[in-house]
Amino acid sequence: MRSCGVVVEYNPFHNGHYYHLEQAREHSGADVMIAIMSGHFLQRGEPAIMDKWHRAEAALKNGADLVLELPFLYAVQHSDYFSQGAVQTLIEAGVDAICFGSESGDIDAFMKAYSHMNDYQEEYNTALRTHLNEGHSFPESSRLAYESIQFPSEAVDLSQPNNILGYSYVKQIMSYAPSVTPLTIHRKSSHYHDEHITGPIASATSIRRQMIEAGALTKETKQTMPAEVPDLLDDYKNTYGCWHQWEAYFHLLQYKVLTMDEETLRCFHGMDEGLEYRLKRAMKKAVTFEDFMNRVKTKRYTWTRLQRTMTHLLVGTDKDEARRGLRETPPPYARILGMNETGRKYLKWAKKETETSFITQPQAMQHPLLDLESRAAAAYYSLLPAADRVSRLNREYEAPVILSTNM
Amino acid sequence: MRSCGVVVEYNPFHNGHYYHLEQAREHSGADVMIAIMSGHFLQRGEPAIMDKWHRAEAALKNGADLVLELPFLYAVQHSDYFSQGAVQTLIEAGVDAICFGSESGDIDAFMKAYSHMNDYQEEYNTALRTHLNEGHSFPESSRLAYESIQFPSEAVDLSQPNNILGYSYVKQIMSYAPSVTPLTIHRKSSHYHDEHITGPIASATSIRRQMIEAGALTKETKQTMPAEVPDLLDDYKNTYGCWHQWEAYFHLLQYKVLTMDEETLRCFHGMDEGLEYRLKRAMKKAVTFEDFMNRVKTKRYTWTRLQRTMTHLLVGTDKDEARRGLRETPPPYARILGMNETGRKYLKWAKKETETSFITQPQAMQHPLLDLESRAAAAYYSLLPAADRVSRLNREYEAPVILSTNM
Repeated sequence: MRSCGVVVEYNPFHNGHYYHLEQAREHSGADVMIAIMSGHFLQRGEPAIMDKWHRAEAALKNGADLVLELPFLYAVQHSDYFSQGAVQTLIEAGVDAICFGSESGDIDAFMKAYSHMNDYQEEYNTALRTHLNEGHSFPESSRLAYESIQFPSEAVDLSQPNNILGYSYVKQIMSYAPSVTPLTIHRKSSHYHDEHITGPIASATSIRRQMIEAGALTKETKQTMPAEVPDLLDDYKNTYGCWHQWEAYFHLLQYKVLTMDEETLRCFHGMDEGLEYRLKRAMKKAVTFEDFMNRVKTKRYTWTRLQRTMTHLLVGTDKDEARRGLRETPPPYARILGMNETGRKYLKWAKKETETSFITQPQAMQHPLLDLESRAAAAYYSLLPAADRVSRLNREYEAPVILSTNM
Repeated sequence: MRSCGVVVEYNPFHNGHYYHLEQAREHSGADVMIAIMSGHFLQRGEPAIMDKWHRAEAALKNGADLVLELPFLYAVQHSDYFSQGAVQTLIEAGVDAICFGSESGDIDAFMKAYSHMNDYQEEYNTALRTHLNEGHSFPESSRLAYESIQFPSEAVDLSQPNNILGYSYVKQIMSYAPSVTPLTIHRKSSHYHDEHITGPIASATSIRRQMIEAGALTKETKQTMPAEVPDLLDDYKNTYGCWHQWEAYFHLLQYKVLTMDEETLRCFHGMDEGLEYRLKRAMKKAVTFEDFMNRVKTKRYTWTRLQRTMTHLLVGTDKDEARRGLRETPPPYARILGMNETGRKYLKWAKKETETSFITQPQAMQHPLLDLESRAAAAYYSLLPAADRVSRLNREYEAPVILSTNM
């Protein structure tokens, strides 16, 4: 079976994702599409609008055959760790190709950038250090460093933030298993972080924004999603009373910060540069999450980096466990969130032919990354009414989503 | 100025408390009545139904002249530490007498018990150890040990739980400053933990129960309270949206337990005997605070002891800071929650004539017990809407309640 992997968040699953899966299948000639997806919390340090099980179901109903979970510790990280966790898991799971969306849609441009970077690694590192020392944030320093090593015009431009993630996939593939084929397809929606819906293909950001503002799926947002996704989103909100967003967790974060001393706060992953003092001060005044973030963020400490740190604080990831967990390379297991019949067949093959520990239930294995997963679930579901909180927590220990037929 | 101290919680202030203050003033011949009161959390490990500022105001409007705060760390403790903190603070603040309510109403009976206990201390200790080793709870072992040393009939019976707290005040006074006069007055309501209201004098337990069940002050509950207390309670609920009770904090406790590993849980004050494992297991299933408590409590680990431990977990009191804090004897400061004109005059005298550091605002002093106080406030107010949360937290740093005239 020819297989193709994709790295996804599906927050929520929309037409662009559908198109990406369809195109990736075509380009790779794959019989089976394997998605590795962030769980309850996402790369930018946000809670997903609905839980991983519903998002996995949406994916299976719209083109994915097997959905794996990117462990929480890898999911809520900057692009290097994020892509390391995702790409290595896919490769260990036996994929032949990995296909990502990009503005350029030209894999050669990424390969050129990779080769240029190999030639200028030292210059890049020196420039990066200089800009960091000047007090710039990591993304900004990195952008300036990329600029300084002057990519050839045929290489993808890494000073454009949207190309960074794709590049980090390519880098992971080339350094970890160059026999796997990197593929890219042109993104239909040109702006990843577009804030407004302008047609049937819209950015996830614009879709979420409209959903949260309206507190419901509008006609416009529904048009941006393929079959059954609006129903899944509606069902989720009707059943559990909310779509998840940071503002709803703010009281928990405030409670946590204000009942911990600075020394304890300092133990959480990402809590660096004296951030704990800023947190304590800001929390005594902030009345919303946004208000709080604006009080805390600095030139060095960007919004996204801060959101990630706040997610690790909310979930309780401490520095030691993060250090130990991120040293595990490749990630020690591949957890299955869902599959259809094709996915099941692939899995049967992969269990025989690869070394990967595929697990369908976390109790099958004792591992600190799985403990963290259940803490992430506890934090994520803490907004729900009590009975739902408990039942969703138990969902963690049940079988994956299984679609008996392919869609 | 002749002064008399009382140890109180006023949760809420009722006719029995009014009567106690009146009688204590009469018996002691005091010009000034000084109440030392638990803050936001109480001796039995519960949140107070309304905050300490409103309860201090209720006291000042009904017979108290000066209200001091028993530090959180002393307030949420078994009777020994509780009475140590309260009695020593009153004595250091210069009181001539301390008056407590009791069923017997006979101070000689308490003094006889004190002298009998002095004679049989060793036998008592041996019996206590034996019963603890048999697996009984502390209160039960203590009751059995008291029984075994056979008090003379004229001594107050310490195997009756209601006499224990009064006895612990007497013991503190006699061992710390025997020149201070212990006084007791007969309690009008015979049963401290009565669950039903039977007249204008009712137990705080029965009043709270009816208030919480009805979600409002009924005609019956109003009759149990003196002037202005019902208005204070109503205003509180209308302004902040709630009266405080454990059930409303359950989601925070569940969130906290489920996002911490056992090793971290073990660091909290009172988390002994492997309780952390029981907590984690119970929290995966419990849907209410009561449900949770029933799953966790054991013969050794009584409901009240467990509630205290849960309060320390909610507030984040760790074992080290508790150990260090409880070693401070007498407590390092007396914080003023409120006063009237008489209280102000007394304070002027006491600041000159005693060694006590009276503080009106916590920022006047750097002390770990005060840090803990602000964490207790943060936990307590975490139920309120965001803007109120922040404004009530700031209330901690403002001036005490001041009544310009005596009532």
